[in-house]
Amino acid sequence: MEYIYSKENKRIKYLKKLSSSASYRREEGVFVAEGLRLCTDALDSGADVVSAYFSETFFNAHREFAEQAEDGIKESFILRDSIFSAVSDTKTPQGVLFVIKTLDKTIDFDTIKDNGKVLALENVQDPVNLGTILRTAEALGVDAVVLSSGCCDVYSPKVVRGSMGAVFRLPMHIAADLPEFIRVFNSFGTSYAAVLDRDSVSLSEGLDKGAVLAVVGNEGNGMTPEAVAACTNKLYIPMRGGAESLNVSAAAGIIIWEMVK
Amino acid sequence: MEYIYSKENKRIKYLKKLSSSASYRREEGVFVAEGLRLCTDALDSGADVVSAYFSETFFNAHREFAEQAEDGIKESFILRDSIFSAVSDTKTPQGVLFVIKTLDKTIDFDTIKDNGKVLALENVQDPVNLGTILRTAEALGVDAVVLSSGCCDVYSPKVVRGSMGAVFRLPMHIAADLPEFIRVFNSFGTSYAAVLDRDSVSLSEGLDKGAVLAVVGNEGNGMTPEAVAACTNKLYIPMRGGAESLNVSAAAGIIIWEMVK
Repeated sequence: MEYIYSKENKRIKYLKKLSSSASYRREEGVFVAEGLRLCTDALDSGADVVSAYFSETFFNAHREFAEQAEDGIKESFILRDSIFSAVSDTKTPQGVLFVIKTLDKTIDFDTIKDNGKVLALENVQDPVNLGTILRTAEALGVDAVVLSSGCCDVYSPKVVRGSMGAVFRLPMHIAADLPEFIRVFNSFGTSYAAVLDRDSVSLSEGLDKGAVLAVVGNEGNGMTPEAVAACTNKLYIPMRGGAESLNVSAAAGIIIWEMVK
Repeated sequence: MEYIYSKENKRIKYLKKLSSSASYRREEGVFVAEGLRLCTDALDSGADVVSAYFSETFFNAHREFAEQAEDGIKESFILRDSIFSAVSDTKTPQGVLFVIKTLDKTIDFDTIKDNGKVLALENVQDPVNLGTILRTAEALGVDAVVLSSGCCDVYSPKVVRGSMGAVFRLPMHIAADLPEFIRVFNSFGTSYAAVLDRDSVSLSEGLDKGAVLAVVGNEGNGMTPEAVAACTNKLYIPMRGGAESLNVSAAAGIIIWEMVK
């Protein structure tokens, strides 16, 4: 256990950069999880924790947790409280933060060919929406989530927090070419574009029983025409109200529910 | 159209207080809606707009909208941009803000007795969750939403924004005694407590066809025992994942979907 006394310490700069830069996270292959609940969850999930950081106050209050955590983690550090606050993404930091390796993101098609339920997200931008969707997908039992490269980073601190640790466990794949991914999926399953169109079918009629891929689009603009065209089917959620629109995480939640139930 | 040049103007203090204080909103019987989309929505919904506030920049860019709006609104004001920023709830204000009368909150039981679908929320605390739930409830066609008095204020700026204007249109009722409301509902319909318990039934088995009330609880603690006991039925959303929990707005969305479809 090392102590860090200065904000100029290179570790502090490293943590700040990891929290703020998606491209640096990708380069390093790691991300940051903060808070007792998430960090406990990371250990329970068997996530690959590279290093741990504790504030002095946290360390003194949760010595047992910190020492247990230290056993399985290569490097751990204690930070003066004011320094911890500087690297924290929250207003009232709990005082514990792990650096964790990103998951291997390949989806094993063999395991989803028969009856796999896969959710794809195209250009979902809001980290709160993305976190909620990942949490719902994991809780309801989606087999994998595919994200277009235009989605916000799944390893941003807000997404990690909102996902309630789903990012530690849920098989995820970043598709550089989402329409191409959809076409590959079509060779063994049915794909649905969530889009209101002349030939869309109502979600209340239910989805296919076999391998199913459901694709949900961007908050403001929905799906791209290319991704819609790649799907074998189109579906819409029937609405009656004046607003005539759902938040993307609400829409995704309902579609996931119909897909897995 | 009056001009406001000073932050010390009593209107400015009034707007700030309306944005920040739920009890003041209740006292005055009004709330604030901000942004072009919401304000247009308020006019289209026939909401009772008491006064309108425009920033100079907005007024010059949207003179037609401002002048049309002025027709139906008793008082309207133009604010220097820096003053508008001071009353705005957003980081990058669009420059338009309406003060609107709260809706009459009584629910007409005669209209929901036969086949009404009602959602009740007990002590939902987060304004983002509440806004999303109201938006989903309206879009999918819930007939009314009942809120326990422990819920966060439905007229807080964040809820109004997140609801996408559903607060202008959705029949809502604040129940001082939610268990009592549930018991009254039971005299003509079926009530479901969203709670995982020994005798809960799975949501995948579907809900009753007639008048249905579904109750969802607080983010951290779920429903109170009193409200659970008042319900005729209990239901749970079957989950498979490691997290074993859904965000309350995701859970409410799925329950609403099953209730109305």
